[in-house]
Amino acid sequence: MHELQERIRCDGQNLGRGILKVDGFINHQVDARLMSDAGKELARRFKHLGVTKVLTAEISGIAPALTTALALDSPVIYARKSKPITMPEQVYRDTAPSHTKGKMVELLVSPEVLHATDRVLIVDDFLATGQTIAALARIVLASGATLVGIGAVIEKTFEGGRQVLSAQFDVPIESLVVIVDMGDGQIVFG
Amino acid sequence: MHELQERIRCDGQNLGRGILKVDGFINHQVDARLMSDAGKELARRFKHLGVTKVLTAEISGIAPALTTALALDSPVIYARKSKPITMPEQVYRDTAPSHTKGKMVELLVSPEVLHATDRVLIVDDFLATGQTIAALARIVLASGATLVGIGAVIEKTFEGGRQVLSAQFDVPIESLVVIVDMGDGQIVFG
Repeated sequence: MHELQERIRCDGQNLGRGILKVDGFINHQVDARLMSDAGKELARRFKHLGVTKVLTAEISGIAPALTTALALDSPVIYARKSKPITMPEQVYRDTAPSHTKGKMVELLVSPEVLHATDRVLIVDDFLATGQTIAALARIVLASGATLVGIGAVIEKTFEGGRQVLSAQFDVPIESLVVIVDMGDGQIVFG
Repeated sequence: MHELQERIRCDGQNLGRGILKVDGFINHQVDARLMSDAGKELARRFKHLGVTKVLTAEISGIAPALTTALALDSPVIYARKSKPITMPEQVYRDTAPSHTKGKMVELLVSPEVLHATDRVLIVDDFLATGQTIAALARIVLASGATLVGIGAVIEKTFEGGRQVLSAQFDVPIESLVVIVDMGDGQIVFG
């Protein structure tokens, strides 16, 4: 997605250790129009798969997952990281290491919203190590629903997430912008 | 907003102590189309005010704030509750008691995204005690930006938030669905 790649080139910052600062337009302030276009493009790539639910993890996955769901005319579920009092006792639960928080985080999805008949597209802002997306995918399988695809706004290929996910889940994986190297302060697009 | 009120009447649950369970369509699973309509309606009510930024708090404010921002063609900022490594040292910071978590939560906004020239509309899923919204409004004022309005998807008038906010901030406050009483397991609309 050319427009997004140019925005990262102009306004993204390489903070070192693989950390890409895009909080001016992706994950603190969100450029709503750009995110809507990203959602439309992800939807275009997956709509032939009969998606009934988009699934993401709070917090920064919510914006791209919502715009993708809007374009697919499907609901979106965001897995919670702590249990709200409105959630039932028994939930689908998995864990993933957080790259940016340096600890394990829980992901919780209510069985009230994810059903065995659902065809689920997972969407997240980043595909990096793939650990969060893998945990979401395990939740989909635990529910008996069908995982149909994985979409990310930005992929950092050098963290190996695509290989991790491809080895476990036989579904198409799409990302809108691919970054192949962030060494020496660079941001090298693929 | 009639459609939303009917959805709450059909699928909302009164869990007692003023807690409204709407996690099947508002704040865990999100009905994307309904949320888009809610955003369009909030945008319609505020667009004459020259909004340049929509501001909300993670997590459940993100969806309505994003759809409102889309309809206003403005960016949206979500205040973070913990500091990501991408955020600068000096940030706008305020605190509010969390109704559902039973503790104080911090709200953090980067000065990189909120400027003195901005005209800010605050949007959240609920207007209840008004404490989270008041904290966001104080952040707007601390930045030197102009607060132009406050919008909520669902207002629970019996928690008094509108009075709290009106007393401190001289801006229009709009909510799409008003609930006036949740005693005795009821959900009474205003």
